[in-house]
Amino acid sequence: MISSKAIDAAIETLFGNLEFQSRPAGLYDPLRYMIAIGGKRIRPRLCLTTYGIFADEITPSVLEPAAALEIFHTFTLIHDDIMDRSPLRRGNPTVWKKWSEDTAILSGDVMCIDAYKHLAKAPAQVLPQAMELFSKTASRVCDGQQLDMDFEKRSSVSMNEYMEMIGLKTGVLLACSAQMGALVAGADGWSQDSLYEYGYYLGLAFQVADDYLDAYGDQKVFGKPIGGDILNGKKSWLTVRAMEKGAEGLADALAAPALTPEEQAAKIARVMDIYASVDVAADARKAISDLSSRAVFKGSDAAMGADGVTVLENFAKSLLGRTA
Amino acid sequence: MISSKAIDAAIETLFGNLEFQSRPAGLYDPLRYMIAIGGKRIRPRLCLTTYGIFADEITPSVLEPAAALEIFHTFTLIHDDIMDRSPLRRGNPTVWKKWSEDTAILSGDVMCIDAYKHLAKAPAQVLPQAMELFSKTASRVCDGQQLDMDFEKRSSVSMNEYMEMIGLKTGVLLACSAQMGALVAGADGWSQDSLYEYGYYLGLAFQVADDYLDAYGDQKVFGKPIGGDILNGKKSWLTVRAMEKGAEGLADALAAPALTPEEQAAKIARVMDIYASVDVAADARKAISDLSSRAVFKGSDAAMGADGVTVLENFAKSLLGRTA
Repeated sequence: MISSKAIDAAIETLFGNLEFQSRPAGLYDPLRYMIAIGGKRIRPRLCLTTYGIFADEITPSVLEPAAALEIFHTFTLIHDDIMDRSPLRRGNPTVWKKWSEDTAILSGDVMCIDAYKHLAKAPAQVLPQAMELFSKTASRVCDGQQLDMDFEKRSSVSMNEYMEMIGLKTGVLLACSAQMGALVAGADGWSQDSLYEYGYYLGLAFQVADDYLDAYGDQKVFGKPIGGDILNGKKSWLTVRAMEKGAEGLADALAAPALTPEEQAAKIARVMDIYASVDVAADARKAISDLSSRAVFKGSDAAMGADGVTVLENFAKSLLGRTA
Repeated sequence: MISSKAIDAAIETLFGNLEFQSRPAGLYDPLRYMIAIGGKRIRPRLCLTTYGIFADEITPSVLEPAAALEIFHTFTLIHDDIMDRSPLRRGNPTVWKKWSEDTAILSGDVMCIDAYKHLAKAPAQVLPQAMELFSKTASRVCDGQQLDMDFEKRSSVSMNEYMEMIGLKTGVLLACSAQMGALVAGADGWSQDSLYEYGYYLGLAFQVADDYLDAYGDQKVFGKPIGGDILNGKKSWLTVRAMEKGAEGLADALAAPALTPEEQAAKIARVMDIYASVDVAADARKAISDLSSRAVFKGSDAAMGADGVTVLENFAKSLLGRTA
């Protein structure tokens, strides 16, 4: 068993020391920038956490795949930000805004390849399986982004469709991270599958929490302006649930243009009133809590002691603590 | 030894039967489209050719990495076409033109990942080395595209810089293809390195030939309108060489706007006159021939009989026959 303190320290060292090529600078500067502006390193942390249930020492054999997970995730952010026309990421200008779209395309590409360079350093005896898991996951993440964009063009999306989309966009990469740690640690196939399921439901819970916090969070803690999804007219768990409950006027309220700060505040207030009228906030909190419990229930099937279950519970709590 | 006829048949079957996921259709249709509009499959063909020097039977162990090489190359074309604003590819609309930039970004991403899915099916005992070779190559191809874009913004580029750029953009992937075949066939490290060099110089010769044919080719054979590089004011081997020889008025001639067909014909004629004044056509033919000889000379170092050298010569001839 590896302590969460040791994992924190390993993550800090790993991303503090991560190096990219220096030349051509125009290509690699955005990679350094994106890693430097940080994030919570959830995916590598989850990978080290499940690894730590079965192993006693953190070695490069797990740090390299863990780095691959974060680098891959960061690559998807660079490209998603182009497609979503997002100007800000973690409070900083996005790569296409700071440099250019062409730079964001090509730097993203080289970052995806860099993820595979790290993954290739997984132990040879698990490399074929690690590669298959990683690539299967990676293409599903793209499938999820495609569904997300498809849904933006549609007037209504069912809750089942929405959950499938966030499962692909967010769930599978957390699932892959949880399985990867177990795989590298030499856990059996059954345990790997159980932890995959843990990561998947944890990812769903995490995405619903992200949607919830966009409307009900504290901007300082959340790290982005509250109401961003509403202003962008984006389909979120809250809008899908409110539609499902027959909330009136939501589509119009979300489609309303809002250019000045006053108009924006009014638009947010109007949508929040509609949310309140069908009480989606309580539903969201319940969904997050249910998904989180389901994650731990699934993960508990892995061949590990009660200590292992506690580790999974604590990880879920630290990820969702604000909401579940 | 495997015959070139058997290789032709294997390539046709391989790409005729290549399958991609069906859903989401918006994501995978562009992959099918790009594979269907074809190309000469140079990279997988080269991989099978060097493999065939050391092996007697084509098996999935080499077909899968061979497919990975073509799929990766096709992914780079999809993204390059966005960055270069190219409307046509092999006489057909490019992906960003036919669908959208967002589709081209995301379909390209998933195609890059698909390349790795095929690569992962290389035999387990060579997989770590195959992965390292492939990813090192893949990131260099991105470096080359970055240099190409950087050069477009500069007023002059030296021949050394130009050769480095095409070495990255085109040379290393042919080099990787040639080494991959030898690696999978179990050839020793020295032979692999020799064939890597063969592919590298062959790639340089191929790119110089492409630049040459853009000005001096037969449109029906070349597959794109003659003079495309000139109209786009693109730096090519011919412009770099003409500058090196002190050709006068070239920069102005290349920068001149040309909108109507008459203006375009006049622009091409003016640049061709400048090329003729310093006889770059003969220089290009000599460079192609020298690079091709050097490729075969380097490849001949591999541990194989005279038959092997003949195979390398024939491959170079079939690739460059029109020009070298």
